[in-house]
Amino acid sequence: MNRVVIALGGNALLRKNDRQDFITQVRRAKEALSSIADVINDHQVVITHGNGPQVGNILLQNEIAREQVVPMPLDVCGAMSQGLISQAIFQAYESIRVSTGIDKDAVSIFTRTLVSADDEAFDNPSKPIGPFYTDEKARKLKEQFGWPLVKITGKGWRRVVPSPTPIEILEAGVIKSLLADNYLPIGVGGGGVPVIKTESGYRGVEAVIDKDLASAVLATNVGADSLMILTDVDHVYKSFGTDDEEAIGKISLGEMKSILENNRFENGSILPKIRAALNFVENGGKRAYITSLEYGKRAMEEDYGTVIYSD
Amino acid sequence: MNRVVIALGGNALLRKNDRQDFITQVRRAKEALSSIADVINDHQVVITHGNGPQVGNILLQNEIAREQVVPMPLDVCGAMSQGLISQAIFQAYESIRVSTGIDKDAVSIFTRTLVSADDEAFDNPSKPIGPFYTDEKARKLKEQFGWPLVKITGKGWRRVVPSPTPIEILEAGVIKSLLADNYLPIGVGGGGVPVIKTESGYRGVEAVIDKDLASAVLATNVGADSLMILTDVDHVYKSFGTDDEEAIGKISLGEMKSILENNRFENGSILPKIRAALNFVENGGKRAYITSLEYGKRAMEEDYGTVIYSD
Repeated sequence: MNRVVIALGGNALLRKNDRQDFITQVRRAKEALSSIADVINDHQVVITHGNGPQVGNILLQNEIAREQVVPMPLDVCGAMSQGLISQAIFQAYESIRVSTGIDKDAVSIFTRTLVSADDEAFDNPSKPIGPFYTDEKARKLKEQFGWPLVKITGKGWRRVVPSPTPIEILEAGVIKSLLADNYLPIGVGGGGVPVIKTESGYRGVEAVIDKDLASAVLATNVGADSLMILTDVDHVYKSFGTDDEEAIGKISLGEMKSILENNRFENGSILPKIRAALNFVENGGKRAYITSLEYGKRAMEEDYGTVIYSD
Repeated sequence: MNRVVIALGGNALLRKNDRQDFITQVRRAKEALSSIADVINDHQVVITHGNGPQVGNILLQNEIAREQVVPMPLDVCGAMSQGLISQAIFQAYESIRVSTGIDKDAVSIFTRTLVSADDEAFDNPSKPIGPFYTDEKARKLKEQFGWPLVKITGKGWRRVVPSPTPIEILEAGVIKSLLADNYLPIGVGGGGVPVIKTESGYRGVEAVIDKDLASAVLATNVGADSLMILTDVDHVYKSFGTDDEEAIGKISLGEMKSILENNRFENGSILPKIRAALNFVENGGKRAYITSLEYGKRAMEEDYGTVIYSD
């Protein structure tokens, strides 16, 4: 029996062309969990998840209703998305339990992630979130709230927020105990609610934490054997989308670091996953998998997908 | 050391004339937690809470943004409110920990409450929720979603939803373990997300569970010694608001049941609290307190407030 942190990508719960209703999210969650049902049954598993589409929708609702309802800060919207997605995952998991007979209760833990108030990301907000705005609206929002915004050609302005580096998952201790007690903990939703340490205790900050980097920190904090990042590609590819495209299979930490130095990977999508996988193995983890949703089980059993192991 | 479930009323986090922003909710949560800090330190405590104003705001945002963002069902909005309120309570608690030195981690558990699909409340939706609608809008909503609505004189139409009886708190087991491990669990937010048992597992239903009744069920499920319902009155009163008004102090289960039979109490506010208190003591609990927020500590120490004890 291994201890595994499985990070579900945003697409596990909602895809671009999906209708954004709740039933669709439950259906997607069922597809995702079906493919890892055996892993959940046979191992100590924590499920973590992204929240991109969901928190985007919540921010948009907050924005549109602004005149009538005081909007919540970004970190609180993230906390709300943890509730929403928990409910989708619970409903999917309960249905899978009935069909598979898995004897393990899921528990969703509201999760906070510690970041440093001195993180340089706070001086350089880079992560676009929420709706697109017209020139006029963008100017007003900047005036009113001091938001930094970036213009995306042909689409309009978008708010950008800092994406600081996760240091510690504050709920790692309780998640570890729950694993030992045969629970299936669900946590670190959307990378966790970002908090900084202040003289009056931990305080939420308006930022977005990369959920893969946060999942790697959790995996280290709970002493997991493996980190499994499930996404929409079956492998990490060198020279992706070119004629020289080449899938990366089982690979040592050192080799993967060298590939990372000598190749370009897309910052928005695969790069944080590679970094998360490397961080985990560098911090003592045995195996980090990056593969697509449907291959979760196969990855564990046959080392399928991109598998980074410690040297 | 006693095991105590403390149920915070909606007014613990937001009052009628408060600005509805997040900082105000944190400030209110600090006031509430300050008054029970010693109880948290000296006893095994679970905190439960209402979500009236918060889920009302979320529903209103969903409604206003309906054309652009697919609204979430009521149970999912309830789950979202658990995330929102957790963040407020955490921030307040962390600040109180710094000032008092309490050595106990809070953990918030997304909580589901089992109700019966056959509960007659489903045939008789009675709990008004969300915004007020005009005649025209109400007609459309009824047509489009089949919502039952009621007209409230001078204010317009309001959606009504079933308020079924809570049977079991699905997360009671994990909350009990957390208590034993010296955590401060936060749960049963808004009465818990209502679920029914179906052939394909537990499924969320659009309903609202009374948070005091649900807290009483939790208190029974975790084998609590006491249930403490903190609200905006220092005692339950017989003939409240009349010249014969009389505070009810320490009273046996039997006496309180007899008072309940022979007096009228307001259904919307104090009655469910009395019923919750009676249920808990009838099911083996030692003491149920009903008093105002600021007297939580005094209630425990001096049996202040309305205190129902087993015969």
